[in-house]
Amino acid sequence: MNKKQAWKLYKEYRDNLAVYQLALTTAYFDKETIAPLAGNAYRNSKLAKLSGVLFSLETDPKAIENIKYLAKETKNKLIKREIALANKNLAAISTFSKEETMEWELLCAESFDAWYQAKNQADYSLFAPYLNKLINGSIERAKRRRPEMIPYDVVLDDFEEGLNIETYDRFFNLIKKELLPLIQRVKEKEEAVDDSFLYAYYPLAKQEQFSEILLDYLGFDKKWGYLGISEHPFTSGFSRNDVRITTSYDEHNIASSIFSIIHEVGHAYYEHQVDGKYDDLLIRSQISSGMHESQSRFLENYIGKRYAFWTKLYPKLQALFPENLANVTQEQFVRAINASRPSLIRTEADELTYPIHILIRYELEKELFNGELDLNELSTLWNQKYQTYLGISAQNDRDGILQDIHWSSAAFGYFPTYALGSAVAAQLFNKLNTELAVDELLAKGQFKQLEKWLKAKVQHDGALLPLNEVLLRATGENFNPEYYIHYLKKKYEELYQL
Amino acid sequence: MNKKQAWKLYKEYRDNLAVYQLALTTAYFDKETIAPLAGNAYRNSKLAKLSGVLFSLETDPKAIENIKYLAKETKNKLIKREIALANKNLAAISTFSKEETMEWELLCAESFDAWYQAKNQADYSLFAPYLNKLINGSIERAKRRRPEMIPYDVVLDDFEEGLNIETYDRFFNLIKKELLPLIQRVKEKEEAVDDSFLYAYYPLAKQEQFSEILLDYLGFDKKWGYLGISEHPFTSGFSRNDVRITTSYDEHNIASSIFSIIHEVGHAYYEHQVDGKYDDLLIRSQISSGMHESQSRFLENYIGKRYAFWTKLYPKLQALFPENLANVTQEQFVRAINASRPSLIRTEADELTYPIHILIRYELEKELFNGELDLNELSTLWNQKYQTYLGISAQNDRDGILQDIHWSSAAFGYFPTYALGSAVAAQLFNKLNTELAVDELLAKGQFKQLEKWLKAKVQHDGALLPLNEVLLRATGENFNPEYYIHYLKKKYEELYQL
Repeated sequence: MNKKQAWKLYKEYRDNLAVYQLALTTAYFDKETIAPLAGNAYRNSKLAKLSGVLFSLETDPKAIENIKYLAKETKNKLIKREIALANKNLAAISTFSKEETMEWELLCAESFDAWYQAKNQADYSLFAPYLNKLINGSIERAKRRRPEMIPYDVVLDDFEEGLNIETYDRFFNLIKKELLPLIQRVKEKEEAVDDSFLYAYYPLAKQEQFSEILLDYLGFDKKWGYLGISEHPFTSGFSRNDVRITTSYDEHNIASSIFSIIHEVGHAYYEHQVDGKYDDLLIRSQISSGMHESQSRFLENYIGKRYAFWTKLYPKLQALFPENLANVTQEQFVRAINASRPSLIRTEADELTYPIHILIRYELEKELFNGELDLNELSTLWNQKYQTYLGISAQNDRDGILQDIHWSSAAFGYFPTYALGSAVAAQLFNKLNTELAVDELLAKGQFKQLEKWLKAKVQHDGALLPLNEVLLRATGENFNPEYYIHYLKKKYEELYQL
Repeated sequence: MNKKQAWKLYKEYRDNLAVYQLALTTAYFDKETIAPLAGNAYRNSKLAKLSGVLFSLETDPKAIENIKYLAKETKNKLIKREIALANKNLAAISTFSKEETMEWELLCAESFDAWYQAKNQADYSLFAPYLNKLINGSIERAKRRRPEMIPYDVVLDDFEEGLNIETYDRFFNLIKKELLPLIQRVKEKEEAVDDSFLYAYYPLAKQEQFSEILLDYLGFDKKWGYLGISEHPFTSGFSRNDVRITTSYDEHNIASSIFSIIHEVGHAYYEHQVDGKYDDLLIRSQISSGMHESQSRFLENYIGKRYAFWTKLYPKLQALFPENLANVTQEQFVRAINASRPSLIRTEADELTYPIHILIRYELEKELFNGELDLNELSTLWNQKYQTYLGISAQNDRDGILQDIHWSSAAFGYFPTYALGSAVAAQLFNKLNTELAVDELLAKGQFKQLEKWLKAKVQHDGALLPLNEVLLRATGENFNPEYYIHYLKKKYEELYQL
């Protein structure tokens, strides 16, 4: 065996795993978008078995031996990184048996179903028993995997390598210190921005028409992309040339679907623009959560909420909804979509209050992983935190504790990467502004130029570099959350004339 | 090993295969409905590999040994039938190697893509090279599997056990002899039925609204069912409680989507109403093509085209399309949907000319399998046959040789079961009329009663009995195509006052 043969063997291994990954990706996308509910029990049990097969192949002793060999022998940068990702992956799964893996997958699938039902009925008690199993299971799994570490640190590292409670505490403390007072000041001048027209009646069919216009403007090509509908918007990369996004529509909130689409298109471009040489490798599929989120938040907020972004689009939106927008100027519209106001739903939150939604989830997850919380109290606690930080609380569990999908698949430690991604995006945006005339390009509808920039700076290399190195290469600096704070302060002080 | 253990082992084997079958079913449904085209190459190659895995598991020597043991030892009727189906399946696939199987699956997937593109561009030449490979491959495969038989007989038997050229020739000769003169007589009195209003402009969105009303009337419950859109309507049983149907809409033909939906709902009920004890067994999944088609044609024609079927529905259709139907009475509407006129598209053909579409495909397939046809001439030949039998020919390949999906996945020998199914349905319908007051039930909207009857007589037992035995049990008679001829003659002589 030489290094070349070992690498070839490794690629065959990944190619083989990708067969099962595509099957599972397809099945989960189907489940979250259109699958009839009565088929869930059958589907869940079969898919858990398929996950078991994938597990067996992934943890095949011969493959692991080959990975060890490559880890020791290779000097090639690409292979080194790929093997590091493979080892991280293996470390996360190989502690468990195939049976444990299948049981866990089944529990996650059933928990998703319970969450879906609970959310539809706005009844947290239907989901609580599942959440209990997921939390306890996640803690136990973290302990078994990395007994030397605090369990919550284990899952934080899963989603963003190298990050832990200490780093996130520092990050969120900065956010609390700098943004909470600003949110308060904005709140006191709430009337400075009128966004009431965003919440008029916008019929679904016309919103769908606008989605097509928007996708077209964003260069989201139906040859390689698809837009579906789901309870919770998400992006799913089937392959580089098959990227699916979803949205959900609210007939009394025109901004909701628009910005969820722009957000998911940001994710979609990352999946689509990764270099083809990484197909089937973890460098393509294991992109860091923070980096991925930086690209979606980048489009959603730093680009999609600019005045120039709407120069070509707004007349088309107006034409579709003259009854609501005929007397609203582009400037008024753009002020409205940037309005900041404490609100209940994270995915619809404005840029300024958004990280507070994440902060709340981060604090709750930390406590949940400490075993300090009674799950029966979680809904109440959720609302207390919203009251403390944002001065509001949910009237029902659908708008509170049940709003997000993530806990239903045991994705604890994932939320913090959303705030991280927002901050990364700020740093990238600062750099972009020194290299391209952003508003000029947008006003001319040359959105593609921005995607080219993101491709070159971030996306084409997939997960070849960890988050901080991507930033170093793209901006010449380490990750620095001050860009985020500065951006938000400047933007909202101007908007609200503070 | 005893029989009980062997049967348990067999059920585990099937349960395991069902994991892969569900994954493939999901992926193919996805592909035919929504998957972006640029992802086809990647998807095809991965799915071919998944088919290869399924093949290896299905032809596992230990499993085959167990099947042989059961075939020899069991006296249980259910197990006997299941094992007979398993052996039929194995006989069809085990002649080939895993590599050959994957290559064949890949060719079929690529041929589907080529057909799709060719149909969209109405250009048969894009599909011809694939069709050539599929035909030659199918002949070669048939010869290798059953060298003692004529290749076309082999594939006919695949789709309907026991049927062959001899039996189908007899069947189609009867159709030619009895129906061609009737079609001619109807043609001469074409003006007796006005159906022009069916081809007015019916906007898509409102057609979709009516689809929901129709599905509701048919008891097609979204808890276990889903309606999608595809180039060619089909039904896909993911499991007993997850049955998907598709339709396609033509804004200038209101009958097209309506009757394709009723047709597919007929298939869907078969998938849904099979007894749960057969889950994962071939008795559930290997229902004979003719029997399956009998249930779809039953709903589409014998039920869906009756006056009483429309008593509850027609006012709702009228209300949606007043501009086209306000002055059309229910009687006029029902006459129109029963109008017979030679036409180009099989799936939209009336009951009387429908079997002639099948006859044409049957004759062409026979000749193709004899190696008598030049594929470059096939489009011309297609049109010549339409000219000979129906006096019409297609203006382009989309409406001619490319209209059907089936050949693109090498489903040769499948079409004849469509005419067979129509005739089986006639025999069942004759019996139904002696047991239930069909029109009374329909007029009251009690459609469910009919589905209960079909479940009891046909569907709940899946493929436990072969076609002829189902008919014997349900009607007390062997298959008898005279019911079909009699039904059509009576119906069209009355309608056209011949």
